Amino acid sequence: MTKMATCDRLTTLFVLVLLVVSMRAHAQSDPLPTWNDGATKQAIVAFVQQTTTSGSAKFVPPEERVATFDQDGTLWVEQPIYSQVMYCLERVPAVVKAKPELANVEPFKTVMSGNRDAIAKLSKQDLEKILVATLTGMPVDQFNADVSKWLDQAKHPRWKRPYTELTYVPMQDLMKYLRANGYKTYIVTGGGQDFVRVYSQKTYGIPPEQVVGTAGGTSFGYDKSGRPFLTKMPKLLLNDDAAGKPEGIHLVIGRRPAAAFGNSTGDRQMLEYTGAGDGARLMMLVLQDDAQREYAYGPAAGLPATKVGTFTQALHDEAKKNGWFVVSMKNDWKRIFAFDP
Amino acid sequence: MTKMATCDRLTTLFVLVLLVVSMRAHAQSDPLPTWNDGATKQAIVAFVQQTTTSGSAKFVPPEERVATFDQDGTLWVEQPIYSQVMYCLERVPAVVKAKPELANVEPFKTVMSGNRDAIAKLSKQDLEKILVATLTGMPVDQFNADVSKWLDQAKHPRWKRPYTELTYVPMQDLMKYLRANGYKTYIVTGGGQDFVRVYSQKTYGIPPEQVVGTAGGTSFGYDKSGRPFLTKMPKLLLNDDAAGKPEGIHLVIGRRPAAAFGNSTGDRQMLEYTGAGDGARLMMLVLQDDAQREYAYGPAAGLPATKVGTFTQALHDEAKKNGWFVVSMKNDWKRIFAFDP
Repeated sequence: MTKMATCDRLTTLFVLVLLVVSMRAHAQSDPLPTWNDGATKQAIVAFVQQTTTSGSAKFVPPEERVATFDQDGTLWVEQPIYSQVMYCLERVPAVVKAKPELANVEPFKTVMSGNRDAIAKLSKQDLEKILVATLTGMPVDQFNADVSKWLDQAKHPRWKRPYTELTYVPMQDLMKYLRANGYKTYIVTGGGQDFVRVYSQKTYGIPPEQVVGTAGGTSFGYDKSGRPFLTKMPKLLLNDDAAGKPEGIHLVIGRRPAAAFGNSTGDRQMLEYTGAGDGARLMMLVLQDDAQREYAYGPAAGLPATKVGTFTQALHDEAKKNGWFVVSMKNDWKRIFAFDP
Repeated sequence: MTKMATCDRLTTLFVLVLLVVSMRAHAQSDPLPTWNDGATKQAIVAFVQQTTTSGSAKFVPPEERVATFDQDGTLWVEQPIYSQVMYCLERVPAVVKAKPELANVEPFKTVMSGNRDAIAKLSKQDLEKILVATLTGMPVDQFNADVSKWLDQAKHPRWKRPYTELTYVPMQDLMKYLRANGYKTYIVTGGGQDFVRVYSQKTYGIPPEQVVGTAGGTSFGYDKSGRPFLTKMPKLLLNDDAAGKPEGIHLVIGRRPAAAFGNSTGDRQMLEYTGAGDGARLMMLVLQDDAQREYAYGPAAGLPATKVGTFTQALHDEAKKNGWFVVSMKNDWKRIFAFDP
């Protein structure tokens, strides 16, 4: 090839590169395609631009770009019952099979009866017994395999789809947008840390080390062949709900988030803790106000409280007072699920 | 500029780029410049090459490249006394000033006396009282500021230098080499998680979220102006030593490390847990056998055990049996400290 021909090829290459760069810039012009235009979307985009533009008064160094997300009701459907509670209830037959003496002991007897009304009326103490029996006592690896298998089979009663398909696409878009701008996204959930870690990478692109949740102790030991393993113990180390959320954030992350997202009173302290830091902050609460496409519930939506996800009027008032944004699922989101038309 | 001239400039640019790339490759030809050639160094390089070469049978996906390091005696000097214990002892006057009634109460009375022999003889229970009094009860931010100030002033009794200058350069080189190959480096220490997080970024390039250590609970609350803050509580959540190390790794990281480094029996279970995973693994123990440049102690070096960092003969035997490498400070390391000639 002559020098001139090489030069032409180089020029073509350069033009192509420019074209690709410009196409990418265009694709990025709406970083939140599933969000309707409005104050909420503008606040997100302004926050990201201000905190990532070097020289900006609100610039946040990359290592401090931490965004925390509640899971149930913030990233995916929490009605009519938390998916993890469903897992525990559906694990009861396996537990009773392994320990047949439990078949006639409450609350296992009620769960085994399949009587939905009776199961719905189980007390908090009964539920705790079920959680302990189904979430502890087994090797960590066994638990992970059990959860993984369940997730492949279990279906939400309304949509008849796996729970992992019931994530809110606008929140997925938001997490991707934040990550594309150097933010580390964490899940901070009242749910079980080990439970959520099983699917967090696949479902949200969030690795296990970025999941903070309610955590029990484990116990190190050896199996018969001398191979070491960890057993899940019925010892609560962290109740990652309400005041436990900032405590869990300190324990696992050791940094104050710059942005935090929730949907209930269980997220109040996380948002307060996030807001108490210096510099730019973004706090948001998702309001379930879309009975048609998802659910509508809770006093802040002018509706009765339900067993899960309480968004009280007091929390709504605090959000107003503190400059937190309330995301209306109905008005702010173009689509809710990936399978929505 | 003519097309021909542009082309010449492009060619020059390409040659320059090639030159830089080749210079970098040359600079990287010895990734561990402070390590002497030998089996240990070869094992490290082989492990990194095998686990990061795509197509290799031992390839480890980037997200699973986790390497954990004990701190005291593995990354920096632990003799004659752990730096954190020194911090606690030196904090006692401030605690007594705030609570004068402690001046006549043991063990505070002994510490205030300044009698080194008496202080060295304090029981484990006494020491625990001092740890609780100096590490808990204050806001997290206050604690961080106190530790940071102490680190700026405190000096090691032998070298008369700040503790943060007493890190082993070969281990720093090793961590940089692993990070350059996509490994996430974690500190997994029996020391206090909050204590180590204060200096981990500056001293080792390890961010707070990659420090796992002995951790107490915190308590979320509000100050008089209504600003939320966390207080360090005298409630042990994780004793990150011995069996507590794999338990802590599960709690904070949620993945099994591919490589682990320690120097004492407190690291045994972490190395066992690391070694029990599938695929390529690298486990190493640093042996303090260099009385001249650092210290020599412990049965594995044919010397008496000391109060800190016990490397027993049994651990040495287990290392041999399991294919763990023992790093001789004397023979494997060209230099120990950055200030060494």
